[in-house]
Amino acid sequence: MSEKTYKIIELVGSSATSWEDAAQAAVNTAAKTLRDLRIAEITQMDMKIENGKVAAYRARVKLSFKYET
Amino acid sequence: MSEKTYKIIELVGSSATSWEDAAQAAVNTAAKTLRDLRIAEITQMDMKIENGKVAAYRARVKLSFKYET
Amino acid sequence: MSEKTYKIIELVGSSATSWEDAAQAAVNTAAKTLRDLRIAEITQMDMKIENGKVAAYRARVKLSFKYET
Amino acid sequence: MSEKTYKIIELVGSSATSWEDAAQAAVNTAAKTLRDLRIAEITQMDMKIENGKVAAYRARVKLSFKYET
Amino acid sequence: MSEKTYKIIELVGSSATSWEDAAQAAVNTAAKTLRDLRIAEITQMDMKIENGKVAAYRARVKLSFKYET
Amino acid sequence: MSEKTYKIIELVGSSATSWEDAAQAAVNTAAKTLRDLRIAEITQMDMKIENGKVAAYRARVKLSFKYET
Amino acid sequence: MSEKTYKIIELVGSSATSWEDAAQAAVNTAAKTLRDLRIAEITQMDMKIENGKVAAYRARVKLSFKYET
Amino acid sequence: MSEKTYKIIELVGSSATSWEDAAQAAVNTAAKTLRDLRIAEITQMDMKIENGKVAAYRARVKLSFKYET
Amino acid sequence: MSEKTYKIIELVGSSATSWEDAAQAAVNTAAKTLRDLRIAEITQMDMKIENGKVAAYRARVKLSFKYET
Amino acid sequence: MSEKTYKIIELVGSSATSWEDAAQAAVNTAAKTLRDLRIAEITQMDMKIENGKVAAYRARVKLSFKYET
Amino acid sequence: MSEKTYKIIELVGSSATSWEDAAQAAVNTAAKTLRDLRIAEITQMDMKIENGKVAAYRARVKLSFKYET
Amino acid sequence: MSEKTYKIIELVGSSATSWEDAAQAAVNTAAKTLRDLRIAEITQMDMKIENGKVAAYRARVKLSFKYET
Repeated sequence: MSEKTYKIIELVGSSATSWEDAAQAAVNTAAKTLRDLRIAEITQMDMKIENGKVAAYRARVKLSFKYET
Repeated sequence: MSEKTYKIIELVGSSATSWEDAAQAAVNTAAKTLRDLRIAEITQMDMKIENGKVAAYRARVKLSFKYET
Repeated sequence: MSEKTYKIIELVGSSATSWEDAAQAAVNTAAKTLRDLRIAEITQMDMKIENGKVAAYRARVKLSFKYET
Repeated sequence: MSEKTYKIIELVGSSATSWEDAAQAAVNTAAKTLRDLRIAEITQMDMKIENGKVAAYRARVKLSFKYET
Repeated sequence: MSEKTYKIIELVGSSATSWEDAAQAAVNTAAKTLRDLRIAEITQMDMKIENGKVAAYRARVKLSFKYET
Repeated sequence: MSEKTYKIIELVGSSATSWEDAAQAAVNTAAKTLRDLRIAEITQMDMKIENGKVAAYRARVKLSFKYET
Repeated sequence: MSEKTYKIIELVGSSATSWEDAAQAAVNTAAKTLRDLRIAEITQMDMKIENGKVAAYRARVKLSFKYET
Repeated sequence: MSEKTYKIIELVGSSATSWEDAAQAAVNTAAKTLRDLRIAEITQMDMKIENGKVAAYRARVKLSFKYET
Repeated sequence: MSEKTYKIIELVGSSATSWEDAAQAAVNTAAKTLRDLRIAEITQMDMKIENGKVAAYRARVKLSFKYET
Repeated sequence: MSEKTYKIIELVGSSATSWEDAAQAAVNTAAKTLRDLRIAEITQMDMKIENGKVAAYRARVKLSFKYET
Repeated sequence: MSEKTYKIIELVGSSATSWEDAAQAAVNTAAKTLRDLRIAEITQMDMKIENGKVAAYRARVKLSFKYET
Repeated sequence: MSEKTYKIIELVGSSATSWEDAAQAAVNTAAKTLRDLRIAEITQMDMKIENGKVAAYRARVKLSFKYET
């Protein structure tokens, strides 16, 4: 049958270095338990600031994967 | 007590025929494990194209259901 | 390692009294099973009406918490 | 005089079959009392679910028509 | 026939006390003449300020009800 | 009592000259039957084109006024 | 080299029957001259009304394809 | 001369009790130094959570006031 | 056959005088090579400032026209 | 060093004549104290109505300028 | 004459390394055939995932350039 | 007293290297005069192009800090 269903979850990755690493951290965590990850859209980006310096880059990502019940 | 909590999940249904079937596929999958599904909002619609033809209609849906911990 | 991942879920709290109580109901339900809840953003507010009167205030909230796989 | 005014109303049509029928139901109802309907934009689509099945497709439409005072 | 049509109107309720009372004021006014009110979504919230103090809380609400021609 | 309710309607004004005139046309039409018009927000602007020339400027406006039942 | 570029164009398809056919009309037209069409997102849906009846379903689609200079 | 200019600033008020008090805190702070505050729009609402409980309601507000150079 | 396809392009018109002239400049340029222009929606408006004065009004417009392959 | 910082402020200009004059009023006021104004984006347009007539056109503008500490 | 027209196109750049490289890939491709590129706005960012790893960073960009007919 | 107020300002940072550096430039500039910076949200990203090459990455950031009158 041609009908399929995917689920979308939203994660926030965090890194001291860049938004690429922050987003990758979210993907890595998800990949430990989810199969068939396909696309990860960035929905929001921000920075945590401590003592006037950027302490962390954070990327919010929406990840889709095959939904199995 | 009058306070209740619902959870919202986001699924993507896919069908070769129509967005109605795509959305219904997402609802059917969810209904296998979730009770008390009430409303399913469409948040995005797209099409997958292969060889210049529409291969699949896809509907992204937000589903709310009773949240039990 | 400085990389961390949080998960975001979306809940709808409901209360006969106020949106504060509705949002708190959602937080209370989540707190039963999730650790490290930090921020809860309001994404939507509505009211259920019965017999021309407000029967329930409802608040949709996005909650972030530590993601452990 | 070249100045004209149109009014915009928002209706929700509902159908057991498809969003096309749901939207058409809204147009049909409006056409009973309003003249000069021109464009109907879809602003939202959702589904009502009962017993784990799609009970109704609903389309929210904005309709513009000649405003006569 | 399974096809139904609802109308959506937008009101602004105002109260010196809270947004809950402001929204309820809008619902109360609508309920005097409209049957079958179901859902009231909040689309905007603001405050009127006089002499540096909050003089009124205002809530803009979209109300849906059965449309009869 | 400090609680008041306003209604919001959406009109489209049209003019061959400018968006100011288009918006004013909408206000003028509304003012014939509605009392206590206060604010008119522009929600959309477009142009109708005929034979490669601008035939009309159109402004969509949301108007609020005292709601009396 | 791993760097690639795609172009996105926006078309409006129109059909007397359904939004699926309207969207497909846009895809068919594009497929005559463009290679490697992949995804077509729906960005807007409306209906043209004539004599109080739906004369056309229209779907606005964003199409991405391989960009070759 | 009929031309006037207002400035808009964005503040976040915080309160342990309600969003009304949070918004009012922002207005009170602004009123200490700014004259002619008129309207305060709510642009975002969230909650700070500590130990699984709501520790603070926060309201982001846009405030307009007479701009004098 | 009742199926038709339109293309949408986005232009920015610029004028020293007004947004109406800026938008018209974009329409005039498009009309030199495109047939069957119908609607031009304004999607953004800004001003270029030089030496503390408005040097140009700019209007971003989306134009739809018959798509022929 | 190639890194620079600009600040963005939001003003509301008002004029009895047109949105162009309203926006220009905001720019003029800003130009009295700020150097290096570059771009002014329109973020909102509305009209104040008195006795059923447009009393003022208002344009909300975001202005960017060189930030010096 | 002070009136000018720019065109806006939307491209998707892709890179295995970073969103900066992805965006630059889109600019480079455009620069081969278009003169007077000025500004490139990022409208969307996502990642393609293969075997649980980020295979490509993708940036959607809107590019404006002088429109010559 | 548990009520606190934060102020939000919007800056644009610019860098020849990356959006991370652009955003950091904005934070650095702000940190010279403002205490208690906490979060910096990215609200827009673009690139300045010169001679067909990316001359600068620019990030628009909203910064919140303790408001003291």
